[in-house]
Parts: sequence; structure tokens; C-alpha cells
Amino acid sequence: MTTTALAYAAPAAAADLVPTTIERRAVGAHDVLIDIKYAGICHSDIHTVRGEWGPQSYPLVPGHEIAGIVTEVGPEVTRHAVGDRVGVGCMVNSCGRCTNCTAGDEQYCLDGMVGTYGVTDRDGTITQGGYSSHIVVTEDFVLGIPEGIELDVAAPLLCAGITTFSPLHRWGAGPGKKVAVVGLGGLGHMAVKIAHAMGAEVTVLSQSLRKQEDGLRLGADHYHATSDEETFTDLAGSFDLIINTVSAPIDVSAHLGLLTVGGTMVNVGAPAEPLPVNAGALIGGRRSFAGSMIGGIAETQQMLDFCAEHGIGAEIEVISADQVNEAYDRVLASDVRYRFVIDTATLS
Amino acid sequence: MTTTALAYAAPAAAADLVPTTIERRAVGAHDVLIDIKYAGICHSDIHTVRGEWGPQSYPLVPGHEIAGIVTEVGPEVTRHAVGDRVGVGCMVNSCGRCTNCTAGDEQYCLDGMVGTYGVTDRDGTITQGGYSSHIVVTEDFVLGIPEGIELDVAAPLLCAGITTFSPLHRWGAGPGKKVAVVGLGGLGHMAVKIAHAMGAEVTVLSQSLRKQEDGLRLGADHYHATSDEETFTDLAGSFDLIINTVSAPIDVSAHLGLLTVGGTMVNVGAPAEPLPVNAGALIGGRRSFAGSMIGGIAETQQMLDFCAEHGIGAEIEVISADQVNEAYDRVLASDVRYRFVIDTATLS
Repeated sequence: MTTTALAYAAPAAAADLVPTTIERRAVGAHDVLIDIKYAGICHSDIHTVRGEWGPQSYPLVPGHEIAGIVTEVGPEVTRHAVGDRVGVGCMVNSCGRCTNCTAGDEQYCLDGMVGTYGVTDRDGTITQGGYSSHIVVTEDFVLGIPEGIELDVAAPLLCAGITTFSPLHRWGAGPGKKVAVVGLGGLGHMAVKIAHAMGAEVTVLSQSLRKQEDGLRLGADHYHATSDEETFTDLAGSFDLIINTVSAPIDVSAHLGLLTVGGTMVNVGAPAEPLPVNAGALIGGRRSFAGSMIGGIAETQQMLDFCAEHGIGAEIEVISADQVNEAYDRVLASDVRYRFVIDTATLS
Repeated sequence: MTTTALAYAAPAAAADLVPTTIERRAVGAHDVLIDIKYAGICHSDIHTVRGEWGPQSYPLVPGHEIAGIVTEVGPEVTRHAVGDRVGVGCMVNSCGRCTNCTAGDEQYCLDGMVGTYGVTDRDGTITQGGYSSHIVVTEDFVLGIPEGIELDVAAPLLCAGITTFSPLHRWGAGPGKKVAVVGLGGLGHMAVKIAHAMGAEVTVLSQSLRKQEDGLRLGADHYHATSDEETFTDLAGSFDLIINTVSAPIDVSAHLGLLTVGGTMVNVGAPAEPLPVNAGALIGGRRSFAGSMIGGIAETQQMLDFCAEHGIGAEIEVISADQVNEAYDRVLASDVRYRFVIDTATLS
């Protein structure tokens, strides 16, 4: 039996989101039905529903930062039970058989991972996301949210959390390491919290010092403005790792100069335009310019467990569903500290 | 007592190299006097003497691929003895105290390593390179050339060898790893030999198939033309490591697409113009674009020992000193397989 879910959907690329209902598929043998409690708003929701990343099928329900409670499970489900606190992130399926899937890198599935919304699912339907009262997801793509993180502050961890945790973890952020976080927004504030909890010395590099107090409160040890040219001379050769959370083009070569010998700058956002990179900035210090996209499922669970252990949730502003369009405008104006989360109880 | 050395020098940026003599400093307590037997010609010699990498002091003797025999040592020298077979590469000194020097990365000395030619040495003189009969170098920057490598084929190892060995070694080329080498020139042919000896599966990516037979003979398992667009679709996601030896701008983003998840492309040449990099190509596979410059002194010795163990030398064409200018023209025309080496006995 399908589930009729309340939702907020974009009826077209140029239109505001409006209330609607969608049908969720009947719970299959390996499926989990989730009563969504909170859904985070990610900048990429806006790009996608507005067609800026390619044409979409409408109506489209965005949202890939989902936290809720399991209300039904299929007969073959072993990983989750009714009543469990769970989350769903940016993907809801993958082939499960390719080199990358078997290595735990489902986000790089060679067949293409199935995104949580706006993508043709294995059954031919278009996936619909988390701005919704319910969702049905195959159990392997449902994460457990440990006790100790409230569901509202947990929701953004499913995208902003894993997107920053993965490169911090893989590139060795920890005691004795100096980590810089470029940009203090939805992703950046998570990077600061996580890098600090990992034991690294954390520096925020932001356009201005406007959010300095916040940055230090969230766990940064230092805060510098990139609009000040002295930042690039004073901090030259300082950082083992830079996490660039800014999706707009920045001066990559100047930032590479801030790395130690052997250091790496990891982009987690992808500007549309190619970035000019001075090869000399790489060669002159055996430096790397890298990229990273969310994380695998096991790694996402590891992130949630890490955050629970360290008491980390996102900094959020909870809104009602009818505030979504206004929230979009504020996200675009960088007027959010640091993530909007929709209380899905307000969908009704 | 100083040593009067025969040499070939550029009298000015726009002039051919001519025979001359230069004075080598008296052998100091920690110095080694080397009777140079062979000196390789590196493309960067040409850029430098022609002033393309900045203004120079003339007359300038280039050459940083030096192999010879020790003929005198200072009283405090412990690492080398008269009669030893030795080499000198791209640097002849560094501060020895900074973080990078103490980590064995003298090439990234924070005070600036002292290049083998065209650089102000610690004593205020301008260093003069290897197209010369003799050179005096502080013992710490003199490498031992093991028995089993002839001096003529050893000379290019001091630049082309270490420049490719270092990234291959650091980024884990070895059994089970797929390594691509972009460009089959002075650097590329060494990368192929060394990667093959390390046990990697080696692919050459060259503009055309013109040198295919050579590439396979040198140790490549596969050879593909980058002028064929199918190369980029057929080999997508194939390589763990790409060593780009081409100093001219190439389509970095297209090459990044050839990497596996987590793969790295390392530039060892530095085009003058910034390279446009599509961040999506990095993010879409947790890929890295890196750079690497020669190697440290201990690492260079490790490379020489590795090459001796595996019977690796450069593929060379030995020339007399009076052929240097003609050789420069041929290097610029990519008409050399794969390194010119000057027999310094012909300087007299």
C-alpha cells in the first residue's frame, strides 16, 4: 500500500514552492517507511529546483537532509526497526556491485548513485526528497541517528556533516594538524565543529571578520579575513589541510600558497566555471588540490556516531514549511546561521 | 686554491653558448671537488639561460645533471672520498635548519634552496653549473652513484630521474597500481622505466603513437594517443596515478577524468599560464591534482640506489660540447631520445 505524504514542491523552475501531496511507494521487502520530523535546506536544493544544474521533472520535492522515525519496515529488513531514530542523506540507492560501491564509496557508484530527489530511481519513478511528511527508502541507505543528537540538529549532518567530515577524516585532521576552513556557512560551520572535535588547530578564512565571534564559539582557534591581503603573506605555508566550502570561484592559487609542503586543499563545492590553478603553486610545495563529494554510507554512519560522541549538531534555525520560499531568499543572501531546518509537523 | 674549470657558457640571453673558463672556489672544509665526466641537458637549462624564467647574471654556465669523480675533499668531509663516483643535481645548498630541510625536503627550503646554476650562493657568488670540467660542492649535496650505473646514463637521473621517482614513490606506484605517464620525453621516459621497475602497470599517454615502440620497449604495458578523443572515454576512471611530464598546458580536467576514485594526477612541469581545472572533475571522484619538484637529497640517493638495483639509466645521446647549441634546437623540437648528455672531455 502506498503512503500519501504531505510535501512542499516546486511546480516549475521559476516558481515558488507550494504545498502538495505525493505518493510514496509501498514498503518493499527491504524498505523502511520513515515519518520525517525535520528536513534541512541545502543550497543545492535551490540550484536544483530552479533548474540551474540542468532541467528537472516537476513538481519536484527537494530535501536531502532528513531526520525522522521509522514507522514501518519490510519483512526482510534487519538494520532498522519501528521506532528507530534515523536519517537519510543525499542518496537513496546505488548499484551495490561496482568497484566503488563495494569499496563503500556509493556516492561514486559507476552506474550513478540515485539522488534523494529529482533522479530516476531503479523503478523508473522520479525520486522526491525530504520536504515531506514521509519517505520510503531501502534500508541500506538509511542511517541510524544515535541518542544524544536531537533530530532537528541531526538533519543537516546528513549532507553538511558528511561533506566536511569525509575530507577531514581522509586527509588526517587531528592533533598536531593545522586545518583551515574557507567560508563559514552551512558547510563551513560543520567543518569547524568537526575539525575542532578531531583535535586539529582550526582557522577560519572568511571574506570578512563579520562572523568571527561565531567562528571562535564554534571551535575555531583563529579567524582571518581573506579580503585582507596580509592574510596570504602572514599565513603562507601554514596549513596541512584546507577545506574550501565556498562554491563561488576563489583564488585557488593564493590559497594553495597557505599550505605546508605536502598540504592539500579540498574543494567540497563545485563552482560552475573552471578554476585557474597555477601549477607552480602545487609544484613549489608538493601540494594537492582535491575534491570530495559527501561520503559513503558506512562513513556517514561513522560521522553520525562521531558527532554523537562529541555532542555535535548543526547550528540551525527551525522554520515552518510556509517559510521555505523566504528561507531560500535568505540562503541566497547568506542570511542564515547556519542552516534552515523545516519542522515537517507544519506541513499539515 | 681555486680551480680553473673549462666550461660552456651563455654570454647573454639571446646568444649561443660559447667555450670559456670559470673559477671554482677553493675546496673548503666540507667541500668536494668533482672532475665532471658527463652533464645532461635539461629543457630548463634552455629556459633559464635564455632569460625566459627571469633575468640572469651572465656569463652563465647551465647544467644540473652532473656525474663525475671526486678528486679532492676538504678536511672535514666524511661522506665522500677521492675516487668516488658521484653526482650533483638541481641544488648545491640549502639552509639546513628550516622545517623542510630538517624533514629532508631541501628542495623546499624556506630560505630558498641554492640552485646549481644562476643563483646567488651563500658566499655571494653566482652558482655555475655542470657544462664544465670541474665543480666544488658541499658534501651534503653530493650523491653517490652506485656501481652498476655508467656515469653517462646516470647524469640525467639527477634531475629527470628524481623528478619522476619522487612522485611515483610518494603516491604509491607499485604492484596492483595503474600508472599513466603523460608525455614520453626526458622526464616521461624515466617515469616509464621507474614505474615499471616499481611493479606498476604502466600506460603512456602521448599526443601521437609515434614513439609507441619505444614506450613499450622502455617498460610501458599500454600506449595511447591523447589526440584520439576515444582515449578519454575508453580509459575513464582507469588510473590510480598520472604523472604529467608535459610542461605545455594540457586539458587537466579531461585527464582528471582518467583517474579512479581517490586517484591523483601529479604535474612535474609547470606551464607559465594557470591551468583551468574543473572542480567537478575533482569532486566527482575524490581526485587530486598535485605538483612535485625534484626530491630531497636522501630521496635522491634512494632513487640512485633503486636505479642501480634495477639496472636503470637514462636513454641518452652523448654529444660533444660544441654540439650544445644544436642540441638546444633539437630539444626545443622534441628531437631527442631521450636526453642529450655532454661528454665533458670534449670541453678541452
